[in-house]
Amino acid sequence: MKLCIDKALSADVLSKYEEKVKKATLMLENGSGKGNDFLGWLHLPSSISDEELNAIQTVADRLKKSCDVVVVAGIGGSYLGAKAVISALSNSFVNKAENAPEILFAGNNISEDYLAELMDYLSDKKFGIINISKSGTTTETALAFRLLKTQLETQMGKEEAKQRIVAITDATKGALRKLSTQEGYDTFVIPDNVGGRFSVLTAVGLLPIATAGYDICQLVKGAVDMEKSCSDEVATKENPVSVYAIVRNELYAQGKKIEILVNYHPKLHYLSEWWKQLYGESEGKDGKGIFPASVDFTTDLHSMGQWIQDGERTIFETVISIASPNKKVVIPVDEENLDGLNFLAGKRVDEVNKMAELGTQLAHVDGGVPNLRIEIPTLDAYNIGQLIYFFEKACGVSGYILDVNPFDQPGVEAYKKNMFALLEKPGYEAETAAIKSRI
Amino acid sequence: MKLCIDKALSADVLSKYEEKVKKATLMLENGSGKGNDFLGWLHLPSSISDEELNAIQTVADRLKKSCDVVVVAGIGGSYLGAKAVISALSNSFVNKAENAPEILFAGNNISEDYLAELMDYLSDKKFGIINISKSGTTTETALAFRLLKTQLETQMGKEEAKQRIVAITDATKGALRKLSTQEGYDTFVIPDNVGGRFSVLTAVGLLPIATAGYDICQLVKGAVDMEKSCSDEVATKENPVSVYAIVRNELYAQGKKIEILVNYHPKLHYLSEWWKQLYGESEGKDGKGIFPASVDFTTDLHSMGQWIQDGERTIFETVISIASPNKKVVIPVDEENLDGLNFLAGKRVDEVNKMAELGTQLAHVDGGVPNLRIEIPTLDAYNIGQLIYFFEKACGVSGYILDVNPFDQPGVEAYKKNMFALLEKPGYEAETAAIKSRI
Repeated sequence: MKLCIDKALSADVLSKYEEKVKKATLMLENGSGKGNDFLGWLHLPSSISDEELNAIQTVADRLKKSCDVVVVAGIGGSYLGAKAVISALSNSFVNKAENAPEILFAGNNISEDYLAELMDYLSDKKFGIINISKSGTTTETALAFRLLKTQLETQMGKEEAKQRIVAITDATKGALRKLSTQEGYDTFVIPDNVGGRFSVLTAVGLLPIATAGYDICQLVKGAVDMEKSCSDEVATKENPVSVYAIVRNELYAQGKKIEILVNYHPKLHYLSEWWKQLYGESEGKDGKGIFPASVDFTTDLHSMGQWIQDGERTIFETVISIASPNKKVVIPVDEENLDGLNFLAGKRVDEVNKMAELGTQLAHVDGGVPNLRIEIPTLDAYNIGQLIYFFEKACGVSGYILDVNPFDQPGVEAYKKNMFALLEKPGYEAETAAIKSRI
Repeated sequence: MKLCIDKALSADVLSKYEEKVKKATLMLENGSGKGNDFLGWLHLPSSISDEELNAIQTVADRLKKSCDVVVVAGIGGSYLGAKAVISALSNSFVNKAENAPEILFAGNNISEDYLAELMDYLSDKKFGIINISKSGTTTETALAFRLLKTQLETQMGKEEAKQRIVAITDATKGALRKLSTQEGYDTFVIPDNVGGRFSVLTAVGLLPIATAGYDICQLVKGAVDMEKSCSDEVATKENPVSVYAIVRNELYAQGKKIEILVNYHPKLHYLSEWWKQLYGESEGKDGKGIFPASVDFTTDLHSMGQWIQDGERTIFETVISIASPNKKVVIPVDEENLDGLNFLAGKRVDEVNKMAELGTQLAHVDGGVPNLRIEIPTLDAYNIGQLIYFFEKACGVSGYILDVNPFDQPGVEAYKKNMFALLEKPGYEAETAAIKSRI
């Protein structure tokens, strides 16, 4: 992975933040900063053992053998990491890898139509469930699981259903742990010191990814190598984590309030969604934080492109560029050349995509949109592992530079509390009375 | 359709903008404002004849009969309108309607992997192509069409391929018109006075939607009824178009720089993408314009929710709420109730979703996020037609209040010009020399 930053920024800015970034990095390393009970992700990649990976792969292989479809139930960090990696590695038009089940996601919304259509779709299929919830009582996920568990038991019988349900939850506490013990489900643990949005390299992400047929060893290896490449022993200017954390804080201080994560391959769409949670939930607090948004180019050059080029000058972009595509398509000659594309004949499609990328970068910089560029050699599990750890560590460092607690999410409770009060959940009697008087 | 606005705003604000909104509406009606050669959308719904709808339906029915898959090639406004309506009306898990082909989209990116995988997917299928391009030379779309046309001719023979290709393009000029005449393709016209992002109710949107198996008569009927409900004879306070245009301009003037379009049903995801182009491309110019973003709730309450609740106080939200879902799921009782959800047993899932929505609205308003709410009775073609025309007309009025030309998109040319220079397109020799000296 290579990170290039806008020429307008470089050397001076990096020096200016040298002390701050060192302090932030040390706070992570020493566990002396805010939210220090959630630093389990920091050296997670290098601490994953072969035994753990084997245990995950074994269960994944069992699901692969027995299921046509596996539904992954989870929300937020228990959804986006797996979704991001699986989307990035999947064929754009075939909804499953060879010798692997189709992976569907549920428990991340409360849409009645979505659930009804899911249950209908599953009604003639051999399916399994990976249920991911620390507490087992997160409304969206618990609701989907209650419905799907009932359906699975009806379709396959109670005993067979138990073989097809895997729980990823707290080590000892909570509703899902209790149910799992009682029913004898296979389980994996969500560590106490790893928050949801940092959990993709635990079983939370690894089990769904392995079940989808992708190489979790390579994914972890990429993360391990990145853990080395951006350790606190690497000099600031050589350290992509430090550089990214510095540049985005400096741009924010200069009034760049929106960061868009950009790709030129639609398979990266959900990596951006994962990134939006990581940064939005980590930094969006105390009345501050860059607003994270994302675009898929060149698609969205024909929608958001106009705003980016000519709207308020409060935006910068971080581009993920893939050096080599996995497939090959050469542009054919057309005798008549009515479309005028013969000047591209013989070129690979990616050569055109790369010139769109470079042309856009130049246009945006000219238009006052600073540009960061992250290049990976190719889109595979190893390089996605690199990106994941890079973004996670940079998020921790960036949040400390911004002086927020990057590891909590107090704002997420607000809607839940109101929702429980409105639904008259037992224990919320006072809140129910209060909220009913408002509406 | 019903529009409710934040109590904190209401009466005073509407009066304050009364003159401005009347002037803007009159400029649209008289064609006296900027971009007045692109006002063909304004009375489009009521001017669509049964003959036009029949002609579209006839071609759609032919494609439905002869194709397993229809690829719609187009970008920007030649992609997002059809994609939005088809997604909103489709089953979440089954990729086609009954008696209709699967609809895929291409020509909206330059990803080599995407095109390679598409061509591979189509290699054993009876497919057709709807090619949408005013000029026939838009790079993304022309490139995909060149590849897919060649493949179709190889798979089916030249004569059969001609029956399976439909072109939507300029009435008389351009590469695609010329090719269509030569090959004898069925064609439909993109009117000169309707810009891409306002074109979903022309054949650009209607043919793909009809081919996907959805009711274009109801879609147009919804738009026609909305055209009446928000005509310039309706008093400002009763006119949803006026109210929406006023409120968003007032909020923008108050420093609310980001508008998020919110849904509680993932099927509306692409309606938000369509809306982002409509507003972003219309208003994002001259260094101004609200930044349009979108979220799917409750999913994204567990990612962007934290920022929205507690980040910079520069955001407001517009919620699209669907009063009644199309399907029915009742939450079952569970004897053990380990997940603690029995207090919801017997309720429909949508009742929980609605309390999540109301709880979120209250939490966000408490957190300083003004709330607009658009309610439609149910998700069907008629109500989507209403939403489409509502948003289009409000966009024109809003853009005039902001004092921009809402109907041009000069910023979209910047990347194209650079890309052509970098690719050494004939005619770009001077630009090629200039850009090569920069890199």
